Amino acid sequence: MSLDLEEVFVERTKIAALYADAEQLGGTEVTVAGWVRSVRDMKNFGFVTLNDGSCFKDLQVVMNREICANYDAVASCGVGAALIIHGVLELTLERPQPIELQAHTIAIEGASSPEYPMQKKRQSLEYLRTQQHLRPRTNLFRAVFRVRSVAAYAIHKFFQDQGFVYVNTPIITTSDAEGAGEMFQVTTLDLENIPRTDAGKVDYTQDFFDTSAHLTVSGQLQAENFAMAFGDVYTFGPTFRAENSNTRRHAAEFWMIEPEMAFCDLAQDMDIAEAMLQYVISYVLEHCADELEMLNKFVDKGLLERLHHVATSEFARVSYTDAISILEEAISQGEKFNYPVKWGIDLQTEHERYLTEKHFKKPVFVTDYPAEIKAFYMRTNDDGKTVAAADCLVPGIGEIIGGSQREERLDVLEQRIKDLDMDPEQYKYYLDLRRYGSCTHSGFGLGFERLVMYLTGVDNIRDVIPHPRTVGNAEF
Amino acid sequence: MSLDLEEVFVERTKIAALYADAEQLGGTEVTVAGWVRSVRDMKNFGFVTLNDGSCFKDLQVVMNREICANYDAVASCGVGAALIIHGVLELTLERPQPIELQAHTIAIEGASSPEYPMQKKRQSLEYLRTQQHLRPRTNLFRAVFRVRSVAAYAIHKFFQDQGFVYVNTPIITTSDAEGAGEMFQVTTLDLENIPRTDAGKVDYTQDFFDTSAHLTVSGQLQAENFAMAFGDVYTFGPTFRAENSNTRRHAAEFWMIEPEMAFCDLAQDMDIAEAMLQYVISYVLEHCADELEMLNKFVDKGLLERLHHVATSEFARVSYTDAISILEEAISQGEKFNYPVKWGIDLQTEHERYLTEKHFKKPVFVTDYPAEIKAFYMRTNDDGKTVAAADCLVPGIGEIIGGSQREERLDVLEQRIKDLDMDPEQYKYYLDLRRYGSCTHSGFGLGFERLVMYLTGVDNIRDVIPHPRTVGNAEF
Repeated sequence: MSLDLEEVFVERTKIAALYADAEQLGGTEVTVAGWVRSVRDMKNFGFVTLNDGSCFKDLQVVMNREICANYDAVASCGVGAALIIHGVLELTLERPQPIELQAHTIAIEGASSPEYPMQKKRQSLEYLRTQQHLRPRTNLFRAVFRVRSVAAYAIHKFFQDQGFVYVNTPIITTSDAEGAGEMFQVTTLDLENIPRTDAGKVDYTQDFFDTSAHLTVSGQLQAENFAMAFGDVYTFGPTFRAENSNTRRHAAEFWMIEPEMAFCDLAQDMDIAEAMLQYVISYVLEHCADELEMLNKFVDKGLLERLHHVATSEFARVSYTDAISILEEAISQGEKFNYPVKWGIDLQTEHERYLTEKHFKKPVFVTDYPAEIKAFYMRTNDDGKTVAAADCLVPGIGEIIGGSQREERLDVLEQRIKDLDMDPEQYKYYLDLRRYGSCTHSGFGLGFERLVMYLTGVDNIRDVIPHPRTVGNAEF
Repeated sequence: MSLDLEEVFVERTKIAALYADAEQLGGTEVTVAGWVRSVRDMKNFGFVTLNDGSCFKDLQVVMNREICANYDAVASCGVGAALIIHGVLELTLERPQPIELQAHTIAIEGASSPEYPMQKKRQSLEYLRTQQHLRPRTNLFRAVFRVRSVAAYAIHKFFQDQGFVYVNTPIITTSDAEGAGEMFQVTTLDLENIPRTDAGKVDYTQDFFDTSAHLTVSGQLQAENFAMAFGDVYTFGPTFRAENSNTRRHAAEFWMIEPEMAFCDLAQDMDIAEAMLQYVISYVLEHCADELEMLNKFVDKGLLERLHHVATSEFARVSYTDAISILEEAISQGEKFNYPVKWGIDLQTEHERYLTEKHFKKPVFVTDYPAEIKAFYMRTNDDGKTVAAADCLVPGIGEIIGGSQREERLDVLEQRIKDLDMDPEQYKYYLDLRRYGSCTHSGFGLGFERLVMYLTGVDNIRDVIPHPRTVGNAEF
């Protein structure tokens, strides 16, 4: 590792570096480049607030009419204009901002205009969704998308530090994984002129893959192939649901993290999920302090307290059966739910949120759900009616992780596939894993956007995805 | 960061840890879990070679008939069986393998069978492609897929350490980006029964997104939206080409890294690309030593020398015009090419490989290509006929990176879009970036699979993708 990366990135000094190395850089000449957030023209001198995206903080630039020949042009370049500024960094430790730049020259790299839609006034989130190419320049989205980036890296770092192997499971698939949801079809057939077989059906031998193909809803089954070789693996990639649900929590395209561990039972699975969430939260708290402070102030006043609390306190664990009792007890105490509660139901978001927000007041794993409401691959418990599943519910969101110990017994799995009228031929490879060196193994799926919502307090999934895809919307 | 991650992962000791901490663990009792690579039964004692996927190395386990009650069962459990073994770790520093495990108990977690397709004999790569769920258990694929994982992490680490923001650009898109290649259509329409408008056309108002949609071929244009806010960003995600090309270098689904940097010209763009490649190579050399040694021995005898060379030597840079002269000179010296060489041609792989392998004998950036053979968004040079593009060619592969400085001048870009008969309305958002605070900016695209091929010496893209998708193939 003899590479000197510093050398590559010397041309301008990023504002993040000015703040980080203020004491060394104070009094020296530096060049910065960024975009104007505001200009105040005081006639003989003025202030430019500049942001270059390297950190949440802006840099205050002081310009003087006598020094800057193009003073008037800069003063009227407009919010959003791109400037390259050379000057001397001054330490102003006694003032709210500890540094400011005394400009010697200011080059207008690209002007803006009065039509620029991101003027400094407050705009609605709905309007900003129509300006997805510009909204990253606002405080809210600069915070959200840096948190998203840092959280993604924290997840990679967590797993790589533990020796997990990152696996890119396929996006295009010919199997329907778990039958988990509606799928998008992927095709190169000309829809204006679909080729037909003699029997009048779509002739898929003329399609790209010689068969019908879809976008994946989960990489789990393929991840298991790799867990049986590497022990510990994880995926981190896009997954898709073609569900016609226009809610604040659903998108057609979203990213999932799916770790899969060999020689790992349900209790260890929960240990790893909990450690991962706490690690990511701690990492983001450490690396996005300015962003979280703003989000805590303007988006969700309880955010920082909640994140600190979750990062340091043990998650609760409760069986589904006990969770139902808790909900029934709550009803008898006067709690109202829209959906009825009894053993066998799939928990609704209102139930999940009651458990995590009101009863446990922290994240909780609900374990051992009825087999009927869970996927075929989950391990059947000794009682014969529940499976070794564990969903993690968090305050403000509800379910954020769905995990389980996988059925490793060939005969039990074959019987389950048969009972559910699934096609065993479709699961031949999956069953092979149970034929040759099967072992106790577990995994979980974390919806990345839900995690980002949790980390930022933002309550609409459309606002944590760079360019969200939802029913009727795939613009940009 | 008070989290003690060690606590979560205590249940078994990974073989990687046995090798790393051999001196401390020697003489202590440990439990390991993994899969049998071979068994030798010497009647009263035997040897089991175990691998748990945590590292490339196997662990030798010694079992004694007098100690292991199920000696015969273990001796016949078969290659590929899963075992959990408790015993004492012995230091055997004088022997080729520095440690071995003296087994006290061996639990057969999952037996294998004589039908197990990954028996220890040598199998063809073609056959292994039909066993994608099991091939990660072979030496070759354990090496390739760990290198892939480590390289992916190195890329994230490189950019995150430099303050780049990771952006998940959309997979489903309604624009065709750069018109770079054939696209897959994404739809929820029933192909057996396509809804039609009154005019007899496909009625896309009934499709999921209210319009026709496709899989992305590049995230660059969307990445630019974020570069204009964060300065330095990168994407790392799947991209797609529906091209009917059945070659060793093409897949329908592959991962791309697309960094995009504001206030960055073509020379800096190349600096960053070069630093990134050298960083990733150095990182993989450091973290995958055993894997690379095997690949160097059995797959590509020049691999290690080439990687060390590239990691430490400066890349060459040559203009397209000079590159054409070099090729013409080579022809005059007797070099034979299948495709003719003259100014204006798109370089073929044979030309690229001549330049990087025979002429420069190291990676080379070819810059300033004719505008006609490059994309609309590349910056027009002052000569009016070339654009500020830079492709990086590497020995054994040819093009591995395609980059350019982007056209930041609104009027020039609008004219170019018009000249190419493209629809300006489609590029409204992209043009907005030039209206409001435009700046010099550049980026590049790195094909991740080509990088993995380069890092491993594997010469077929099907063998560096967990479950490759090519014409007629989307199984597993």
